[in-house]
Amino acid sequence: MAEFAIGIDGGGTSCRAAVTDRMGKVLGTGKAGAANILSDLENSLVNIVASARQALNNAGLDPELAHELPAVVGTAGANVGDYAKRVEKALPFANGQVVTDAMIALQGALGDADGIIGAFGTGSVYNARRNGKIWGIGGWGFIVGDQASGARLGRDLLERSLLAHDGVCRPSPLTEKIMTEFGVDPERIVEFAHGSKPKDFAGYAPMVFEYAERGDEIAVGIVKAAANAITESLDALLWPECPSICLLGGLSKAYHSWLDARHKALLTEPKGDVLRGAVELAAKLLQSNRGSTP
Amino acid sequence: MAEFAIGIDGGGTSCRAAVTDRMGKVLGTGKAGAANILSDLENSLVNIVASARQALNNAGLDPELAHELPAVVGTAGANVGDYAKRVEKALPFANGQVVTDAMIALQGALGDADGIIGAFGTGSVYNARRNGKIWGIGGWGFIVGDQASGARLGRDLLERSLLAHDGVCRPSPLTEKIMTEFGVDPERIVEFAHGSKPKDFAGYAPMVFEYAERGDEIAVGIVKAAANAITESLDALLWPECPSICLLGGLSKAYHSWLDARHKALLTEPKGDVLRGAVELAAKLLQSNRGSTP
Repeated sequence: MAEFAIGIDGGGTSCRAAVTDRMGKVLGTGKAGAANILSDLENSLVNIVASARQALNNAGLDPELAHELPAVVGTAGANVGDYAKRVEKALPFANGQVVTDAMIALQGALGDADGIIGAFGTGSVYNARRNGKIWGIGGWGFIVGDQASGARLGRDLLERSLLAHDGVCRPSPLTEKIMTEFGVDPERIVEFAHGSKPKDFAGYAPMVFEYAERGDEIAVGIVKAAANAITESLDALLWPECPSICLLGGLSKAYHSWLDARHKALLTEPKGDVLRGAVELAAKLLQSNRGSTP
Repeated sequence: MAEFAIGIDGGGTSCRAAVTDRMGKVLGTGKAGAANILSDLENSLVNIVASARQALNNAGLDPELAHELPAVVGTAGANVGDYAKRVEKALPFANGQVVTDAMIALQGALGDADGIIGAFGTGSVYNARRNGKIWGIGGWGFIVGDQASGARLGRDLLERSLLAHDGVCRPSPLTEKIMTEFGVDPERIVEFAHGSKPKDFAGYAPMVFEYAERGDEIAVGIVKAAANAITESLDALLWPECPSICLLGGLSKAYHSWLDARHKALLTEPKGDVLRGAVELAAKLLQSNRGSTP
């Protein structure tokens, strides 16, 4: 029976792995390139395995042990079609389980408890666990979803800046700063918008919060509308006995003071990060004995 | 001195030309491929000239006469950098004047009178003439502008449909129709959004109006927000003695009943279309004697 397991956060920027014992104690960690199983399955597999081997090495174990150990990989796209099964088959682990990135984020933030998580970075997405049942909403991307995400805040700011430039709404210090940044040339904002990815728009999100804190009228309007979108999504998930709401991602702290009082009262700090979630699920797999070498 | 002039609507879908006499009477018309001077200058020039030659031919005149006649070409992008000058130099006309598409739309709709025009098709844009001075706002494109355009209405509808699917807002007959159309699979809406151009989103605009007229809650919300955006833009242009507001484009009729009463009271039917505007400006050029062969 295996003594160790591997938890892996297969992220869109990088893969992070950790070797864990039965109790969830981390013995070594590793890191490799990105995992995007929907767009680049081959390199994702390479990077997932590379991070695991590095973690084993870092723990003072033989990287070849990967073939004998159970592993849990959390990655975006695991809920799409048969991708999770395809990745599980292709991985070299004795028992490889592929779950969604939301699953490891939720386990990391809440541990085994019930509750709601909302993640606000370039995108936005919500997940909940109630009596062990997990479900999620949002995360539909920049164009027709991801309300209150960094990308949407940035897009809103550029739109309001153009409206202010046209005299359709009152300019604010923030819209004037934006227009100055683009040489007071609306065409340059349009060019930026057409050549940019969600993360480029999200680059403006911290500025929106900074100005909103100072009372900038346009910034306050954008953040209040985003906070209202969060309220609506949390209300769609919330149940009377829900013990906690955890906000994750780069913008989570910035949103705290803008949330509805009912939700603010339930806010708790995440217990751990996504890699911690993968480690906990890997340790559970080990405990369940399903992690034994055949 | 030339007896005739040519007015040309250099549009993004096709070029339309008309031969006019000094009084603005059309003697013949022609049509050729698209003019997009910013993205494809070479073919734009070919199509502008082809439409002019066809119009001369249709008027029973020698197409070679193009070299001896004055012409006015209205086309998008004429206000960007030195594009108008470059097109004027490259065209074969005795005196070719290149103006914005807004300029010929305004002349067509208002004739020589003061007033405001708002165009609502796939995109949206506003122009005004006050004491002969012309200026415009909006038209900044689908991503960060074009409020109340067909593309924005369609995008809003898909966003609300996903929110309704997630239980974040109440579904309506319209959002349920949309979800059914996409096989009740939110991923398919996301795929559509990422693979679509503004005109694809705009394809949903007539449906939004149709359901709004019937009182569909989501559709009414989308149209009211768009009408409010129109109100704000018209107010940014309006002056106390403004005699009229003309709405142009495929969605103009649909918006009439949703407009603010102050603006509804000023609505007038456009006198003519964009080609009519080009013809009138060409006739003026002829009258001014600047149309004479050197």
